[in-house]
Amino acid sequence: MEKIKHIPENGKKRVIIIGGGFAGLKLARQLANTAYQVVLIDKNNFHQFQPLFYQVATSGLEPSSIAFPLRKIFQKRQNVHFRMAELLEVNTNVQEIYTSLGKLKYDHLVLATGVDTNYFGNKNIEQFAIPMKSVSEAIFLRNSILRNYEKALNESDPVKAANYMNIVLVGGGPTGVELAGALAEMKSEILPKDYPELDFSLMNVYLFEASGQLLNGMSDNASKKAEAYLRKLGVIVKTEARVADYDGLTIKLDNGEAFHSFTLVWAAGVIANPIKGISEIAASRGGRIRVDLYNKVAGLNQVYAIGDLAIQKEGDYQNGHPQVAQVGLQQAGNLAKNFKNLLQNKSMKTFHYKDRGSLATIGKNLAVADLPGMKIQGFAAWILWLFVHLMAIVGVKNRFFILINWVWNYFTSDQSLRVLIRPKKRSFTDIASERHQKINLN
Amino acid sequence: MEKIKHIPENGKKRVIIIGGGFAGLKLARQLANTAYQVVLIDKNNFHQFQPLFYQVATSGLEPSSIAFPLRKIFQKRQNVHFRMAELLEVNTNVQEIYTSLGKLKYDHLVLATGVDTNYFGNKNIEQFAIPMKSVSEAIFLRNSILRNYEKALNESDPVKAANYMNIVLVGGGPTGVELAGALAEMKSEILPKDYPELDFSLMNVYLFEASGQLLNGMSDNASKKAEAYLRKLGVIVKTEARVADYDGLTIKLDNGEAFHSFTLVWAAGVIANPIKGISEIAASRGGRIRVDLYNKVAGLNQVYAIGDLAIQKEGDYQNGHPQVAQVGLQQAGNLAKNFKNLLQNKSMKTFHYKDRGSLATIGKNLAVADLPGMKIQGFAAWILWLFVHLMAIVGVKNRFFILINWVWNYFTSDQSLRVLIRPKKRSFTDIASERHQKINLN
Repeated sequence: MEKIKHIPENGKKRVIIIGGGFAGLKLARQLANTAYQVVLIDKNNFHQFQPLFYQVATSGLEPSSIAFPLRKIFQKRQNVHFRMAELLEVNTNVQEIYTSLGKLKYDHLVLATGVDTNYFGNKNIEQFAIPMKSVSEAIFLRNSILRNYEKALNESDPVKAANYMNIVLVGGGPTGVELAGALAEMKSEILPKDYPELDFSLMNVYLFEASGQLLNGMSDNASKKAEAYLRKLGVIVKTEARVADYDGLTIKLDNGEAFHSFTLVWAAGVIANPIKGISEIAASRGGRIRVDLYNKVAGLNQVYAIGDLAIQKEGDYQNGHPQVAQVGLQQAGNLAKNFKNLLQNKSMKTFHYKDRGSLATIGKNLAVADLPGMKIQGFAAWILWLFVHLMAIVGVKNRFFILINWVWNYFTSDQSLRVLIRPKKRSFTDIASERHQKINLN
Repeated sequence: MEKIKHIPENGKKRVIIIGGGFAGLKLARQLANTAYQVVLIDKNNFHQFQPLFYQVATSGLEPSSIAFPLRKIFQKRQNVHFRMAELLEVNTNVQEIYTSLGKLKYDHLVLATGVDTNYFGNKNIEQFAIPMKSVSEAIFLRNSILRNYEKALNESDPVKAANYMNIVLVGGGPTGVELAGALAEMKSEILPKDYPELDFSLMNVYLFEASGQLLNGMSDNASKKAEAYLRKLGVIVKTEARVADYDGLTIKLDNGEAFHSFTLVWAAGVIANPIKGISEIAASRGGRIRVDLYNKVAGLNQVYAIGDLAIQKEGDYQNGHPQVAQVGLQQAGNLAKNFKNLLQNKSMKTFHYKDRGSLATIGKNLAVADLPGMKIQGFAAWILWLFVHLMAIVGVKNRFFILINWVWNYFTSDQSLRVLIRPKKRSFTDIASERHQKINLN
């Protein structure tokens, strides 16, 4: 394998960061304009703002509003090199990574690849459910929903029409709760205007949660309020409801109950993708990589892990931190300081997570928030959520667009993004040089 | 075949319009709130604003800015019914259409299906070239460009890198000219910032036109100015250049010259898709359907054709009108008036095209315009082009967004939309009920 091209050997210590999500991106930005050479690698050429996927899925936001091109972020940073590539393997013996673009040696390697959807081994669910862990998956869900409504329109049997109109969400964390709220509002405010011939009393939005309450990472107060809000919006919420199987139409719970829908969104679990050369040594529950209090990977030198991927026993979190953006952002900040300290021969500091609170939004102007010393619900929480998310977004223009979009949606209760754009019948992949090799595109 | 569901038989005369492009959409809007029942059918659930595809392709606009959901447009029009469906056949004997959603009888049928890309029978070009006649094709082109730049970065051989960086545009009409200008600006202003390791002196943007001049539908003055502007921007313009073949890398002209690029955009010809039951009777050159001065299809009753699909001998246009939006819009307006006249037993009026001028834009602030009695070039023409296109766009919000986007791009010479969003490895089609039938999605 050849070396990745055009990355200079200029005497700088090289930090390679795998993953341009919240944690990896923050670390790269904080190391820009230091004496390090930073190489940021991601399989996409953009950062995806996960908290707003549900808005893309319900036609409330353009995909590009939450996808930020990584090259643009680092345009002015001469010491940061971005490559769109997939990590194939890490060779810790020679401190080298192997990627789809070639190999590269590291002085420090930081793994920030996050997590993906966990189907817990159920192959049927994996085949028929729709996940929601990327912008393209959110677009897929949006297109599915729009397409199913066109199909519902062509059913004269109301039971069959309902199968197209029903939506089942599995997983009562923020993703499921936020989607449920947005879909319930689509059902009551928007869809009847678009599809006047359909009978929306036939449509049900279901939210199934395996444990006893929604939003397990939040306070009991927040959980109860969220459930109450959702029921008020017309969502059928079932806790202690574990989905045993799904064949594309019929959902079976483990208590024997059955439901019907052509749309099942699976947001019920996450799992880290294995990293060859690392996971064998240091993986723990759910594939998470064990790290010490400096986020250094257990048993290795010069390799670190931050964000959802990592699992760390720290302070009150002896079973690891919750897999939320805040944790990754703070770990990235601490690691960045430590790398800078290294350059100056200063000592490294251990990581200590400060929980600054949690937020989940349910519908247009309802949210629940747990903030230190305070519990807020309702409209005030929604405004706060709006503000917190906007501040985290990269780039002035995108903050502006999202704000405009949300304000518009709020005042008009309408979404202009109900467009089903699907690729022409050829695959987006295998283009360019592969096309030259005359691979059949159809 | 069953009848399309939920379309009432309420005694109103039914006008079925096939195609929600410029012409079909305008006709439907003008017949909304008349005594007709209007059924609008399109294979997409949105109207696509073609003049701005090139901006989506060069990451200057979000796709949703130029895709307008048809259901939203007719939300308040109780006599207009929209169906996302494909027309399979027309049975003129019994005045019925057959579609992917079922069959439906018409009192009047208006065909407004437009045209598609014409490869003139060259199968290689069809396999390897990128067309630009839809939003999804524009997205495909954008993704191709972005992906090729990532690949160029991994080539140490400058000749091979150039193959990834070069872009060839075939067809010197407005599409090719506008794309060429936008790509030339990307090359000089934006790409070097994103890819500082690449040598952009190696990159060429080519524009090949088979005839002797660009922009054949415009004045000689406009054609010459356009060519001069493009050369000034660094585009290699070749007229009398006919592409004989393309194998995915090598472009061969019929004079023997050869060029290399993994990206060839084909905008060199259009052809109407055949309509079963109609084309056999009334098709002419390029598949266009022959109509009389009332846009009624030759040899049939109650069937009309408007827009790019139709060919009409009228006034100065004894070989048919140019296939431009203006013609379709005016024909739709005339036909709408005639349908309203019919309801009141008034006489129908023949169509007479009024050429209100042409515009083509080359780059950010350069354009050429032919207006009756006036010839403008340069910055003033660009402002005019901006205004004319905005006025034609459906919906206040979208005009606003496009304006903001353009103003931002103009002042910052930057595009934040350089994101390569591709579907997760499954097909967008075959979802829902087909998934239930356990079709393998991979």
